[in-house]
Amino acid sequence: MSETIPSLFMRIINREIPAEILYEDELCIVINDIAPQAPVHMLVIPKQEIARLVDAAHSDQSILGHLLLVAGEVARQFGVDDAFRLVLNNGADAGQTVFHLHLHILAGVKGSKEFSEANIGSW
Amino acid sequence: MSETIPSLFMRIINREIPAEILYEDELCIVINDIAPQAPVHMLVIPKQEIARLVDAAHSDQSILGHLLLVAGEVARQFGVDDAFRLVLNNGADAGQTVFHLHLHILAGVKGSKEFSEANIGSW
Repeated sequence: MSETIPSLFMRIINREIPAEILYEDELCIVINDIAPQAPVHMLVIPKQEIARLVDAAHSDQSILGHLLLVAGEVARQFGVDDAFRLVLNNGADAGQTVFHLHLHILAGVKGSKEFSEANIGSW
Repeated sequence: MSETIPSLFMRIINREIPAEILYEDELCIVINDIAPQAPVHMLVIPKQEIARLVDAAHSDQSILGHLLLVAGEVARQFGVDDAFRLVLNNGADAGQTVFHLHLHILAGVKGSKEFSEANIGSW
């Protein structure tokens, strides 16, 4: 899982790749997924590069909690706080393609089945 | 979202309903989903009753971070740390049926499509 080059997300965070930053604070950014699987499909990305959730250390606890709180805040900001799903893929075989931990926020569909049909594996 | 009776999960935490507790610490428990949608389907449940993620307060940040760390630890313990998906449903229209925030850990299938076909809405 060690990468010698910055992840795609680090390059977005560092403004080396253009992207619309929907939300930013000292610990994370929120952007739209480039291949949305639902009408609303955003990514919450920590500025600290942690490859996978299982690579997180106990010292990352506050960052991880912050990501969940920001997901809720952003859902409110975009008017989808009544119904959204968070997804975190850990490992290539679970659909993780960028090894920089991130949360998917999915919304704009209704019903568990429709949410499950969103194929969350593009990042 | 206000409930005057303890959630199903609170009754499990309080040992009023029998369930196999796979992991427990001062902040959370982990149990198997009663209607598993994948070969491995566990739930990480905080002992503090927070109805939905959007109902979490900033003071819950460390609990939320802890839940994510425990998800990683339990995935390791059960040998699925290479490939698992976490899902959190917020709101009835996203498939949340127990209004006591919880993380689903799904594993034992391979490939993003197969993960997405798991219909995560039974709890």
